Amino acid sequence: MAEEIAQIASSSSAVLRPVSNASRVTALQNIHEYLRAGKGKILEANKADMEAAEKANVAAPLIKRLDLSKGDKFDTMLQGVLDVASLPDPLGNVTFANRLDDGLDLYRVTCPIGVLLVIFESRPEVIANITALAIKSGNAVILKGGKESFHSFAAISGLVREALEGTEIPPGAVQLIESRQEVSELLKQDKYIDLVVPRGSNELVRSIKSNTKIPVLGHADGLCSVYVHCDADVDMAARIVVDSKTNYVAACNAAESLLLQRSALQSHLPTLAKALIDAGVSLKVTPEISESLKQADVEGTASATIGSAEDKDFETEFLSLTIAVAAVEGVEEAIKHINSHSSKHTDSIVTASKEIADKFLNGVDSSGVFWNASTRFSDGFRYGFGTEVGISTSKIHARGPVGLEGLTCYQYQLRGTGQVVADYVGAGGKKEFKHENIDI
Amino acid sequence: MAEEIAQIASSSSAVLRPVSNASRVTALQNIHEYLRAGKGKILEANKADMEAAEKANVAAPLIKRLDLSKGDKFDTMLQGVLDVASLPDPLGNVTFANRLDDGLDLYRVTCPIGVLLVIFESRPEVIANITALAIKSGNAVILKGGKESFHSFAAISGLVREALEGTEIPPGAVQLIESRQEVSELLKQDKYIDLVVPRGSNELVRSIKSNTKIPVLGHADGLCSVYVHCDADVDMAARIVVDSKTNYVAACNAAESLLLQRSALQSHLPTLAKALIDAGVSLKVTPEISESLKQADVEGTASATIGSAEDKDFETEFLSLTIAVAAVEGVEEAIKHINSHSSKHTDSIVTASKEIADKFLNGVDSSGVFWNASTRFSDGFRYGFGTEVGISTSKIHARGPVGLEGLTCYQYQLRGTGQVVADYVGAGGKKEFKHENIDI
Repeated sequence: MAEEIAQIASSSSAVLRPVSNASRVTALQNIHEYLRAGKGKILEANKADMEAAEKANVAAPLIKRLDLSKGDKFDTMLQGVLDVASLPDPLGNVTFANRLDDGLDLYRVTCPIGVLLVIFESRPEVIANITALAIKSGNAVILKGGKESFHSFAAISGLVREALEGTEIPPGAVQLIESRQEVSELLKQDKYIDLVVPRGSNELVRSIKSNTKIPVLGHADGLCSVYVHCDADVDMAARIVVDSKTNYVAACNAAESLLLQRSALQSHLPTLAKALIDAGVSLKVTPEISESLKQADVEGTASATIGSAEDKDFETEFLSLTIAVAAVEGVEEAIKHINSHSSKHTDSIVTASKEIADKFLNGVDSSGVFWNASTRFSDGFRYGFGTEVGISTSKIHARGPVGLEGLTCYQYQLRGTGQVVADYVGAGGKKEFKHENIDI
Repeated sequence: MAEEIAQIASSSSAVLRPVSNASRVTALQNIHEYLRAGKGKILEANKADMEAAEKANVAAPLIKRLDLSKGDKFDTMLQGVLDVASLPDPLGNVTFANRLDDGLDLYRVTCPIGVLLVIFESRPEVIANITALAIKSGNAVILKGGKESFHSFAAISGLVREALEGTEIPPGAVQLIESRQEVSELLKQDKYIDLVVPRGSNELVRSIKSNTKIPVLGHADGLCSVYVHCDADVDMAARIVVDSKTNYVAACNAAESLLLQRSALQSHLPTLAKALIDAGVSLKVTPEISESLKQADVEGTASATIGSAEDKDFETEFLSLTIAVAAVEGVEEAIKHINSHSSKHTDSIVTASKEIADKFLNGVDSSGVFWNASTRFSDGFRYGFGTEVGISTSKIHARGPVGLEGLTCYQYQLRGTGQVVADYVGAGGKKEFKHENIDI
């Protein structure tokens, strides 16, 4: 069963690979039309999901996330498909070109990866977005969404398949699977599946990596930090720390820890603590910070301070109005602390000094390294990518917000006129390579 | 033990990361000097390896490959270190820049991956090359070479570590390990190791992928094909097929199968078969090809034809003067055959038609797709990359010949002036993003 799904995806991928951008755009416009026309059907399925979630006593905020009828969510989802369609074609772009010899030209050309297996959460609108990104980038995709939205997913993917009939894209290019059992069987299909994209917890991503030979582009937890240097403008620092922590606590680009230079404890800590406390944040602090807060006597500190911060608190994704706070000696120790505790997602420094900022940006090994800006800017829309598959915490292929480019790879196309290596140096011959840059 | 090795590599990587290109070049020049001065010591160790291999009855051609004193091998190895040193700095290059808003600039900047675990074969000169590539690209590396060259490896890596003393690069950035046991323990250190680069058989690469959560950049078998279309110049086709097959049979970019358009059996097969037979190649042919050869009555066919080619012969890396031959209906069937049988390494078409060639180049899902050129051109030196870690058969991150660029990744550096997302659309505010291209 899983093998059959993977085979269908693989053969669909071969058909999809050479399809022109114009035809991919037409297919996405078709999908947009079918989803628009099928709104009633989709919302009905969505209602069934919400009712099932209520029966299963799913927490109210989670049920809210399932609701496709809320506000302009449905229209935003539809618009997202058109937005992806109108992005520049990510395929067939020449990123390197070299004349090896007269009549022997080498081109590095972007191409689809092939078959993607994307495992994502329950927000029903995500399936339309991922489908659009996969088709636009010429990849076949096997989708597995969180079970709470299964009826919505089934309704949407059913319409997607109907929409693909009569286009150049085989309906087998988009397949929805239902069970976890199928996922674990699909993870064995490394002959047919080229990339697994799990969006979820660290545990999910680690467990998938343990159970497959297929490359994994992990989208896992975000353990983001803000480091405040002693020369930072204190109001700017407070605004950045509060935004990073509180703008959307459930986001992976929200800050989970605050590091403060030791020499800034007197000058900066009271303002930072007050700003966080006023924003409703609980502080998990080291004994040193605790002592310093006592001396400063900031209003509300006593009730906002919860327990004593241990090392593991700097490796915890609170996903709530809680932040771990510690002092460090300076930028070097901040870099070291972040490199050993963070999830290499996004980390920010607040400082007036370009030199200190550069040290931080070049020393921190995270996909996003920010100077005087909130960690929350780490996002495909804010980066100007139009949309994103998610924010990769992997260290190869694609890091940070992954747009269409992250779903492509490249091939070397060599266009010759009958050359053989035996004529060239290094393989028995005398001819030298020219290796002249070709203007792209 | 393995954890300690990985930890040392990781902390060395943090020191190496911000080191300037000038200092990395100095370190490589130091290594060059130490290896030059230590030539006697290295050749002595190399002799011990060769004697051990002889005692163990290792095949003569393999012993030849171990011999560092042969010809200009040693000097070429030394020169390779300087060549890598003089390549452009692969780090700190801005590959994308976008003004998100006034005073909020986003840069995508190339950076090292971190810690590499490279598993390679026994050719002793390879260790110097990989060491040079790792240091130049700012990565710490853990090296495991084939056991036949262990003494040579130990002598070279000992000198490398001595050479690094007194440079900005910590000696822990280059570590040699000895046993397979250590490899399997290191494969568990996904907290510290960022990328495994195995160079070897498909079995080795698959086994490593099965046993680690660390991303794997596989350098495995090459199952390369040449497809000859009916309109191909027959002499050009013969030259390309012979070169692809015979120039260096042990190479991964050597051809293992020949596909011929059915309508070209009479016009092309006799010449192609004769050229291959004259070059000492044995043919493993399908019944259809066998029949056609009989009719053509090419001299020597009988003794050169071995057995009847089955499907599995088109999935076999012969690494010898043997080639599997089949007829296909046309370019579409050739693409299908290659996509389902080849190892997605390098495949070539010989045709006079640009249209047919484009169909092939856009349809074949391999890292190298060639038109009218030998598969043997698939190589870092020939591509103009200066040198290579190997030829990747992975489909993400880096495909084909992997040079310095394949050992880097990128970070997004955001340089702001105090911005928070709460002021912008989508996160509670009204400010719009500008998303203006910044000239790089």
